[in-house]
Amino acid sequence: MAFSHFGTSFLRKKKIEIIDAIITSGIKELEATSFVSPKAIPQLRDASDLMSKMPKLPSVIYAALVPNLRGAENAIQSGVDQLVVVISATEAHNQANVRRSIKESLSDLDAIFALSRQKKVPVIGAIGVALGCPYQGDVPDQDYAMLIEEYISRGSKRIILADTAGMSTPRRVEKAVQKVLHSYPDIEFIFHFHNNRGKAMANLVAAINAGATTFDTALGGIGGCPNLPQAAGNLPTEDVVYLLDDMGIDTGIDLISLVRAARFLEEMLGYTLPGQVMKSGPRFKADRNSCLFH
Amino acid sequence: MAFSHFGTSFLRKKKIEIIDAIITSGIKELEATSFVSPKAIPQLRDASDLMSKMPKLPSVIYAALVPNLRGAENAIQSGVDQLVVVISATEAHNQANVRRSIKESLSDLDAIFALSRQKKVPVIGAIGVALGCPYQGDVPDQDYAMLIEEYISRGSKRIILADTAGMSTPRRVEKAVQKVLHSYPDIEFIFHFHNNRGKAMANLVAAINAGATTFDTALGGIGGCPNLPQAAGNLPTEDVVYLLDDMGIDTGIDLISLVRAARFLEEMLGYTLPGQVMKSGPRFKADRNSCLFH
Repeated sequence: MAFSHFGTSFLRKKKIEIIDAIITSGIKELEATSFVSPKAIPQLRDASDLMSKMPKLPSVIYAALVPNLRGAENAIQSGVDQLVVVISATEAHNQANVRRSIKESLSDLDAIFALSRQKKVPVIGAIGVALGCPYQGDVPDQDYAMLIEEYISRGSKRIILADTAGMSTPRRVEKAVQKVLHSYPDIEFIFHFHNNRGKAMANLVAAINAGATTFDTALGGIGGCPNLPQAAGNLPTEDVVYLLDDMGIDTGIDLISLVRAARFLEEMLGYTLPGQVMKSGPRFKADRNSCLFH
Repeated sequence: MAFSHFGTSFLRKKKIEIIDAIITSGIKELEATSFVSPKAIPQLRDASDLMSKMPKLPSVIYAALVPNLRGAENAIQSGVDQLVVVISATEAHNQANVRRSIKESLSDLDAIFALSRQKKVPVIGAIGVALGCPYQGDVPDQDYAMLIEEYISRGSKRIILADTAGMSTPRRVEKAVQKVLHSYPDIEFIFHFHNNRGKAMANLVAAINAGATTFDTALGGIGGCPNLPQAAGNLPTEDVVYLLDDMGIDTGIDLISLVRAARFLEEMLGYTLPGQVMKSGPRFKADRNSCLFH
């Protein structure tokens, strides 16, 4: 159900300790790193090395984000189980993100999918700013639908729709989720919400109400955007698990051990993470201090 | 629609500047202070003085929280337009909050409501931990319903149901909202959500979907709990206005000027507030920096 990713600047050993803690909580699939230019994101230059040292468990799927063919080659060589390719739904954001037009990004896809078939490593097609673009504003449905078709026609069975800049709101999400689930019944859609405008959890609930079952979240709510200091992170995985537990949805994930992993991550990073359940505890293990006023 | 409150430690002049900024944005009703023991919350010991210096505008309603008869007397004497009385739905929380049993808190109500009728200052009845208690866990519906009846029988037309410790989740909220709106059609219910477990905005959306129309929020998301350092604040008023604007619900509140007020408050307080729209800007005025990845 939950699917964690992260990108920060601490050492490989620490990264592996965190990944171990995530796996211990019962998470079966995680985006462990990205195979990107070490110039663009030096914190992830250890991607190959990290993958080679990862605990090998048949039940766990390691995904990695790859922005281009070279990244895909490196990822597969390093033993990644699943690739995540990302293209933005708007020209302006794709340019800002990877300094290419959408057409240029698409031109890499054939080679990446050919490699994927040859090496039997599936590709998740991710669509950035699908639910709102900070440059353009609204994104017409047909713009992200075009990318969905491009991914499906090449063999993707799983698609991530990302609200990269946290611009969407519950009713917009509900409509988008209903539309894609209805239009592409054989595809597994994964929804990815950022909290830039405080709506990430509300958007996730709207997505669940509209039939979504798979979400891309981040331990402790880390994430955000390297070029946007005030950007909020992804939804905290443990806050989502708390919600699903409370709704009676079995995720197979142990909330207490996930909270422990999030606190461990916070301690390592040395700054406060946005996760809330990691601060207040789950519903029935809340802090016993008194609380003045309503 | 929105209803702001706060309690912090900066000077009266600064408080009035903030209240001015809130009113300028179009907010018509705000909880400006609390008439509590200066020993318990020294930051609010200026309550009477503050109320006497407040901009007097016939279109603006100033409410104040009063924990007992003495607080109600002081508040009315200081020119408050509306009292907010609070009793917790659980014994354990009421003891922790005001060091009295629910019965003892109720024993003050007759005198407070008599004073309210005499002085024509209405009383909002607030119910703390109505949607989950950190000491007890779940709160049976009849426990907060009992307090609703106590308030209504004494003349309250407005009731606040507070998720004081941020323990509720959308489906619980939806059920509670439907239940109270159906059971007490003549009462205006005001919902108050804290974000301790990351669900405040999702709970507000669930409440709207269930028919709620009035919410108690806080500029910039300040608030929390004096005795619970990790407690999260109330819902940021401006994040709620952003949502309502996007839903086409007219609040009469200007989002940009409200965001300005929230930034002004943050500057005064000197620490980062939880509000998100104040950091990222509204949907169509978002930051133009590039944002790597999905």
